[in-house]
Amino acid sequence: MLEKMDLTKKMDKETYKERLEELQAQLGELQRECKTLEIPVMIAFEGFDAAGKGSQIAELIQALDPRGFEVHAVKQETENERMYPFLWRFWTKTPENGRIAIYDSSWYRRVLIERFEKLITNEQLGDAYDSICAFERQLSDGGMAIIKIFLCVDQKEQRKRFDKLLESKDTAWRVTKGDLERNEKFAKYLAINEEMLQKTDTDYAPWTLVEATDRRFATIKIYTTVIQILRAKVEAAKRPKPEVPQSTVKQEYDKELQSSILSKADLSKSLTEEEYKKNLKVLQKKIKKLHGEMYLKRIPLVLGFEGWDAGGKGGAIKRLTQKMDPRGYVVHPTASPNDIERKHHYLWRFWEAMPKNGHATIFDRTWYGRVMVERIEGFCTKEEWQRAYKEINDMENDLVNAGAVVIKFWLQIDKDEQERRFEERKMNPEKQWKITDEDWRNREKWDQYEEAVDEMLIRTSTPKSPWVVVEGNDKYYARIKVLQTVVDALEAKLKES
Amino acid sequence: MLEKMDLTKKMDKETYKERLEELQAQLGELQRECKTLEIPVMIAFEGFDAAGKGSQIAELIQALDPRGFEVHAVKQETENERMYPFLWRFWTKTPENGRIAIYDSSWYRRVLIERFEKLITNEQLGDAYDSICAFERQLSDGGMAIIKIFLCVDQKEQRKRFDKLLESKDTAWRVTKGDLERNEKFAKYLAINEEMLQKTDTDYAPWTLVEATDRRFATIKIYTTVIQILRAKVEAAKRPKPEVPQSTVKQEYDKELQSSILSKADLSKSLTEEEYKKNLKVLQKKIKKLHGEMYLKRIPLVLGFEGWDAGGKGGAIKRLTQKMDPRGYVVHPTASPNDIERKHHYLWRFWEAMPKNGHATIFDRTWYGRVMVERIEGFCTKEEWQRAYKEINDMENDLVNAGAVVIKFWLQIDKDEQERRFEERKMNPEKQWKITDEDWRNREKWDQYEEAVDEMLIRTSTPKSPWVVVEGNDKYYARIKVLQTVVDALEAKLKES
Repeated sequence: MLEKMDLTKKMDKETYKERLEELQAQLGELQRECKTLEIPVMIAFEGFDAAGKGSQIAELIQALDPRGFEVHAVKQETENERMYPFLWRFWTKTPENGRIAIYDSSWYRRVLIERFEKLITNEQLGDAYDSICAFERQLSDGGMAIIKIFLCVDQKEQRKRFDKLLESKDTAWRVTKGDLERNEKFAKYLAINEEMLQKTDTDYAPWTLVEATDRRFATIKIYTTVIQILRAKVEAAKRPKPEVPQSTVKQEYDKELQSSILSKADLSKSLTEEEYKKNLKVLQKKIKKLHGEMYLKRIPLVLGFEGWDAGGKGGAIKRLTQKMDPRGYVVHPTASPNDIERKHHYLWRFWEAMPKNGHATIFDRTWYGRVMVERIEGFCTKEEWQRAYKEINDMENDLVNAGAVVIKFWLQIDKDEQERRFEERKMNPEKQWKITDEDWRNREKWDQYEEAVDEMLIRTSTPKSPWVVVEGNDKYYARIKVLQTVVDALEAKLKES
Repeated sequence: MLEKMDLTKKMDKETYKERLEELQAQLGELQRECKTLEIPVMIAFEGFDAAGKGSQIAELIQALDPRGFEVHAVKQETENERMYPFLWRFWTKTPENGRIAIYDSSWYRRVLIERFEKLITNEQLGDAYDSICAFERQLSDGGMAIIKIFLCVDQKEQRKRFDKLLESKDTAWRVTKGDLERNEKFAKYLAINEEMLQKTDTDYAPWTLVEATDRRFATIKIYTTVIQILRAKVEAAKRPKPEVPQSTVKQEYDKELQSSILSKADLSKSLTEEEYKKNLKVLQKKIKKLHGEMYLKRIPLVLGFEGWDAGGKGGAIKRLTQKMDPRGYVVHPTASPNDIERKHHYLWRFWEAMPKNGHATIFDRTWYGRVMVERIEGFCTKEEWQRAYKEINDMENDLVNAGAVVIKFWLQIDKDEQERRFEERKMNPEKQWKITDEDWRNREKWDQYEEAVDEMLIRTSTPKSPWVVVEGNDKYYARIKVLQTVVDALEAKLKES
């Protein structure tokens, strides 16, 4: 794509001024419309060093209401950021609905500069492309306007600009050793950029190549691009949405034909109090030790707990963490999303909470709400929850690729056991707070949940981030199974690393 | 996904009979609806050996009108098929609109058995997943119903079935050495299948896992799946289509801001007759020799010619092929698609024509019609031609990955030169047939074509399958440039191989 660019393009000052004024007015208006329509916008600036990313961003924001955007300068990862999957720092910086985020170099850094400097392996490179495409696709599917600008100059022009900067002490510091190296090996760096453009020029997030030799020309082209894309998004948002997209395939079985996992669980499994106490002591000791080793080896741990109401999640989490060093783990209770969370992609709040290397996050309820409560209560469309299986697999895959241990527990009890526990809670003044009308209402939808859970377990249990169904009618048995599973997984991971 | 399957599922004979009758009636009706609505359908059967793919297909087709479907038994590639990209044999077997194609094992063979038997490298494996997803996505976007069935049995059940087959001479031949090996290393083969399921369980072509221990249960589940998906497709086809999907981003620039490649071409370039003749002789000789070497090294060559009407495509192709061995190349003239071609994906007819290893296909007009004439005349939707850039890049990428040399020529002349040539043709009785009213009409759309061509050149010129703009006002210069480019590319490829 790059070799064909005509980098001699220019614009005279007069035309520039006249057009800019008009475009600025349009962009200002569109920003307001995006805000009203709650359209989030990401604008990524990439391109060759000294092509003018910084000054073009400065030009672009002239037209924007400063309360509605933010600019992120993306540098080398900080030590803290390096302790997360590489996309984490971008997930956490996605704008909320109605806001604009501008990135001065972006998530593409990974496959450009880091690749050029051989900071990633070939295998990581393939994963990185997959992750980037999944990231953009998920956001785009969720309504994000994604604008990707690539600024082009040629080797000679770049060298000229470096030389000019190097002339004065005030600006010389801006030219780094890396910049000069990439200028010298321009052809090689160009090939890396070319590959990147090809692999990520998708219909949902296409690249716009901008001839940047002449700054005025580039500014007008960037304004025009941003305006075009936002206008299309605004128009689309105003149109009624199609019920079901042509390409989404629906599958629904009656109960008999469903692939059932829950019904297979043997709920008669149990332990005596004595067995329980003995095992608990041994396992808690092991977990404490393993948790320390995970910390030393910088391995992150992600545990998700789901299950029927009163299934015993809280009790299991309590036993699991009892002997763990509290500086090394966080229990993250997941409630309905709050105002701010609702303005983001549904996975955003979970990305925020992911553990850094060496730490553990234990989620009491998880991102699987998307394919359970949100599916059943109609909080998202059918298309959205059907898409979510892959989105969730992609996210967990990113975590595993970054070195994490990921396990999801489903605490299974039967309907009678749930009723018994509900009644018990109602009677017990200390536990009354635990039981609400909503719990009873959810109980009425038992069959719907069962269907959703079975589908979820099948579609999202993978060897690297498995679902573990915990037979939970007997609390002793359930807790020991959870602890034993964690011990086994950590031991296996430590052995392999 | 596999580990969670409950393989004990069963169905009694009575229920089975009753339901099957009802389902067969429904499926027959849906087949007729798909035919009327021109929906093409692909049903892929995968799963463990002896899980019953063959007999389930036999059950399924009971309900179908035999004039409307065909079954493809996918075995190891033939020697002939091995001379094409691995998806070629599936591209050429995609059903036309309104027809059903059933695959007894499918394009997944590549990443399952061939992987297990180490017939492909890790790098090829990554490419294969990309190609498979692109293949399914393109077909799905084009309106194909894609149904993917995976039949599960466990190691023990599989062994039991093999043993039963081995008991009798009449059936023992059906159990291959490979079958037994995969049974022994079941865990390893399962892991390969698991990865495949995860990587390709997409919203546009999801997998359905079918518990196949009990044949009756499996049959009913397969019928139900096929019916569900076809019914959803039929319903979707009846709904009005949304104009522009939410996720597609539009970009339109006025002429000044367009990335222009054509305007950069220096059309004053020329050669004297003497220079031309001298060069032609040398280059034709070289091409003859290189063509022979390509044949020996089994390297396929794909050349595409596009350009303005009267741009000189025919003359260039003539000079190029004059000394080539006619058994080793085909010139493929591309006209408007015929009846049968129109019933397929727009890329289908080009896949059919691709050269096998060692051969050359020279396309006089190409698949780029999608983003030129079809775009401008409104023969496809905006969404469709915008999607086509990536689809075309993916296709050419598959060719290059399979070892081919791919070059695309754009023969550029200016508007005056075109007029001169049109007038000349009009005056010359021998050339009159070459000029039609349509040529004059197309000429009126010069500016629209220029915009489309510029965008095409930028979005689809890649280092591995580049566009070469040929300055064509002087025919001598143009022909020599074409020949020289081919010589250089072949020499480079032979050097590298």
